[in-house]
Amino acid sequence: MYKELNPPRRILMGPGPSDVHPAVLQSMATPLLGHLDPAFLEIMNETMDLLRQVYQTKNKVTLAMSGTGSAGMETLFVNLVEPGDKVMIGVNGLFGQRMVDVASRCGAEVIQVKAAWGDIIEPEKIEDALKTNENVKLVAVVHSETSTGVRQPLQELSEIVHRYNALFVCDMVTSIGGIPTKIDEYQIDAAYSGTQKCLSAPPGLAPVTLSSRAVEALSNRKDKVQSWYLDLSMIQSYWSEERFYHHTAPISMIYSLREALRLIVNEGLENVFKRHALYGGALHSGLEAMGLELLVKEEHRLHQLTSVRIPNSIQDADVRKRLLQKYGLEIGGGLGDLKGKIWRIGLMGYNARQENVTYALAAIEDVLREQGYHFILGAALEAANRFIRENE
Amino acid sequence: MYKELNPPRRILMGPGPSDVHPAVLQSMATPLLGHLDPAFLEIMNETMDLLRQVYQTKNKVTLAMSGTGSAGMETLFVNLVEPGDKVMIGVNGLFGQRMVDVASRCGAEVIQVKAAWGDIIEPEKIEDALKTNENVKLVAVVHSETSTGVRQPLQELSEIVHRYNALFVCDMVTSIGGIPTKIDEYQIDAAYSGTQKCLSAPPGLAPVTLSSRAVEALSNRKDKVQSWYLDLSMIQSYWSEERFYHHTAPISMIYSLREALRLIVNEGLENVFKRHALYGGALHSGLEAMGLELLVKEEHRLHQLTSVRIPNSIQDADVRKRLLQKYGLEIGGGLGDLKGKIWRIGLMGYNARQENVTYALAAIEDVLREQGYHFILGAALEAANRFIRENE
Repeated sequence: MYKELNPPRRILMGPGPSDVHPAVLQSMATPLLGHLDPAFLEIMNETMDLLRQVYQTKNKVTLAMSGTGSAGMETLFVNLVEPGDKVMIGVNGLFGQRMVDVASRCGAEVIQVKAAWGDIIEPEKIEDALKTNENVKLVAVVHSETSTGVRQPLQELSEIVHRYNALFVCDMVTSIGGIPTKIDEYQIDAAYSGTQKCLSAPPGLAPVTLSSRAVEALSNRKDKVQSWYLDLSMIQSYWSEERFYHHTAPISMIYSLREALRLIVNEGLENVFKRHALYGGALHSGLEAMGLELLVKEEHRLHQLTSVRIPNSIQDADVRKRLLQKYGLEIGGGLGDLKGKIWRIGLMGYNARQENVTYALAAIEDVLREQGYHFILGAALEAANRFIRENE
Repeated sequence: MYKELNPPRRILMGPGPSDVHPAVLQSMATPLLGHLDPAFLEIMNETMDLLRQVYQTKNKVTLAMSGTGSAGMETLFVNLVEPGDKVMIGVNGLFGQRMVDVASRCGAEVIQVKAAWGDIIEPEKIEDALKTNENVKLVAVVHSETSTGVRQPLQELSEIVHRYNALFVCDMVTSIGGIPTKIDEYQIDAAYSGTQKCLSAPPGLAPVTLSSRAVEALSNRKDKVQSWYLDLSMIQSYWSEERFYHHTAPISMIYSLREALRLIVNEGLENVFKRHALYGGALHSGLEAMGLELLVKEEHRLHQLTSVRIPNSIQDADVRKRLLQKYGLEIGGGLGDLKGKIWRIGLMGYNARQENVTYALAAIEDVLREQGYHFILGAALEAANRFIRENE
């Protein structure tokens, strides 16, 4: 006979999932309402309202798809793209590559604009590509590239894309609730996200938002969306006043999303961004004081996810295994070409706190010492604390 | 400022979601593991093992898709069907209709075999259709038609379908954990299900199982699966020894599924089926003693979901609203042509108990009396209790 669930306790400081806020965990244990219960429909309204605040948008179509962040990616492509449409994608990491795969499966003619993993997509490169490719329907980039820790600047890019009459689509899986998304201010036409990063909720939902331009593109489709499950026209009917039954909403997951968003809005969005910047910066300072090199240039670094080069003498897997065993601490390895070359350390949502900075730096310091990596003892914590003193 | 979540308490006896078992609710509040943590991979293995037991199969590919039951439906069609394939679908309710829509979006040439809502699909009708349509790749039916309460017999149908060299696919959303599914015994090639019915877990996962024949059909595909998110070849790599990262698994939902399956396996699958039959039968007896007519003939009735005709003089919405307000009791209305004509009453999983039978009959009796419907007071409960005495 199997026993009750009793997993070991972890501190999740990888690229996600991050630790779920205790109040959010508790909300998951709330008994269910039916998915058409008036009280549940009210909770959906509140969730949409909160989601708009956190996405920094007034977009009507702002809701949570019933799948993980990747389902959010697929949602935007299956709905906005029809076979033969030209789609331009910025590829500077794994999630750009994934968009290429997803868009291709929708029958799109994909134009890739590439940059090295760890660099941003330069807006001029998108503009050059738009000059030589006519009638591009949409341009997509990853705002927070979780595979590298790069933060893509969006404002100038959005202006360029709209000058060429294309829709501007952003992967914001690791952005939402961590750094400003400014959907309306930057005129981003569509974005998708996940719940398991800076929202500090469990994985399982994909918040999406679509501008009126994007909604218009939907309504101009010639053919049915190839996915029934992700067909936004029907899903929007369920989330709006019509309340038309589509599929059974994942009730408990929506409870958790509402609670996670509520905590962020109550803390104040600007405070939340500042907290991520403060402790992310402290982690950067601490790691550099340890003599480690960060992958991404300072001006393009994410605060919520830091990629650090693994010193030559060090075995990636050994360190991560030891951190997990000795400290219950999860950090992420590299993906693709960066496998074995970087670690990815998250300070997302609830985890963007002093305790986590100190704990992670101390644990990494200790494990690296075990592995024979030498550095000035105590310098890391001192540097991190100095950053906090000077910036808070 | 939004307040903490505090939904009204309901008793969910509609077509699903059903009430979640308290131990399953509690499991959702467990702190997360990372989706590639060795301890989580062990939990996935246990979940697959438990799922095989509850599905009554040894199929290697038996896992939970990261979406609700409808995502399970879409998973099987996008993976098993290629554009131009002939697909035959039994349509005797909403979920048969939905399969037609989903299969069409995969480019299938769909052949519908129809029956009245409330009837089964007669196996001869499938055989006749297979005689006149060559090279049908798969035949799909709904085992437990949640829109009508009909239980589709599978054994004879499976023999017919295999005689014509087609794959046999079943919608088992409302079956699993409620009535025998006998995947291996009946040689069902693929099935999908949901978690929010007889498993008494929250909605959000879609357990699927595929026979080796179905897996072979997958590997013989000419083109990529049109959905990246639901591409079983990649998802299977994550759930198998390779542990290849695809998308971030919905950790908390998998916790809840493992706990729900564990409770069923520990109670004993046969005991669970008997419990559903006993209390389902009691509900049927009680409703009939109230003078109400059941939609489905006795031999094709589901125990876990009962559809009852609404008496002519009674307003559907008024009764359901009153049950919700006065008793916190949710029952379902009819869908499609049966809208306003039937109620659907679930006794699924944790809710298949004496308390729920008595409570539902008493509440319905009371509310119908308010609405001016007259019957012999007390007869319903007496009939239900007699059924239980004679059958337990």
